[in-house]
Amino acid sequence: MADEIQVQSVAHVVFEGFTTLDMYGPVQAFASCRVPDGDGGWHRFFNQFTIGDSPAAVKSGEGPSTMADYSFEDAPDFDILLIPGGFGTRAAVSNDALLAKIAAMSAKADVTATVCTGSAVLARTGLLDGRPATSNKVAWDWVLEQGPKVDWKRQARWVDDGDIVTSSGVSAGIDMALDLIARLRGEEIAVNSAKFMEYIWNRDPANDPFA
Amino acid sequence: MADEIQVQSVAHVVFEGFTTLDMYGPVQAFASCRVPDGDGGWHRFFNQFTIGDSPAAVKSGEGPSTMADYSFEDAPDFDILLIPGGFGTRAAVSNDALLAKIAAMSAKADVTATVCTGSAVLARTGLLDGRPATSNKVAWDWVLEQGPKVDWKRQARWVDDGDIVTSSGVSAGIDMALDLIARLRGEEIAVNSAKFMEYIWNRDPANDPFA
Repeated sequence: MADEIQVQSVAHVVFEGFTTLDMYGPVQAFASCRVPDGDGGWHRFFNQFTIGDSPAAVKSGEGPSTMADYSFEDAPDFDILLIPGGFGTRAAVSNDALLAKIAAMSAKADVTATVCTGSAVLARTGLLDGRPATSNKVAWDWVLEQGPKVDWKRQARWVDDGDIVTSSGVSAGIDMALDLIARLRGEEIAVNSAKFMEYIWNRDPANDPFA
Repeated sequence: MADEIQVQSVAHVVFEGFTTLDMYGPVQAFASCRVPDGDGGWHRFFNQFTIGDSPAAVKSGEGPSTMADYSFEDAPDFDILLIPGGFGTRAAVSNDALLAKIAAMSAKADVTATVCTGSAVLARTGLLDGRPATSNKVAWDWVLEQGPKVDWKRQARWVDDGDIVTSSGVSAGIDMALDLIARLRGEEIAVNSAKFMEYIWNRDPANDPFA
């Protein structure tokens, strides 16, 4: 069975001032989808890497720096694009070069997912126009200004609109990622991922205690 | 008031194959303790950095690499030491040079906190002997072998033993970090941190659905 596992790739966009848990929550959820390889290791269902302006260290909003594995231009193919939020989105929404690169990356992905104010960045590309989406509740008013044509949903832990999935703030990205995993690879794999993470999964997208 | 905020430092140990959410969950909890500085930014209660064998990129168990800001020898002073777990702990528990460095770092810290199999690494330094501690439930039997003199507690989301605090697997580190914040800086700051993270905090250390 293990030899037949289809591996999907997840590319995580990193930019200065991104919020670490926005990215690393989903990173952990995707990485925790695995079965033993019979040789002491694991077969994973998702391969993950990071993309940024250049293959270099990118400082997060919390302090630690993450390496961008590839530049936008040199990134290998991927199936899922993940865009985190963070204080860095305040600059990102006015960075036309970055927005163009993110739009180009989104066009290559089967699914584009955002966490927190990552949806404000995606909104500024125009790709969310006319579509339902959510975002961080702490920065809600500012987010709305970034996408006046977006059908923003305030009461939502996450919003699944098929090829675009958006989540609320920070931790909500973990719930969204697990739900996306359930849709793409089946519920059992998602449940096992949550269990491996010892994560108490909020499975109801309408259960948003922070709205 | 902001000028009077005491800033505590958190040093995160990174080694090859560490589990990212073990570290980045607490990173986010500590970073989310903040008050507006009146100038569009924030005063933070905790400063955070990473330490490793050398100031270079360290590959995690999930794929993405985190920069070690400092080597063990060159790290500035800190108040809290955090040791993550991960598949890399299988090698770390037999790496005497690394264990000696971690023991030296722990001696400098007011509080040493571990997440997941990070407690197995700390156990191998001898610092957990005779003390209550917990760890990841998936790798429980292996963890016990690393510290036969430790008073292991299976049913525990985390165990607070004063200057040493240990948590269960992966996501449990977030609950532990918030509880440690409440102890060190007061409940209001911890509650606000959880709210900023939009995190549904499991505040009861005995509530361990994965035991």
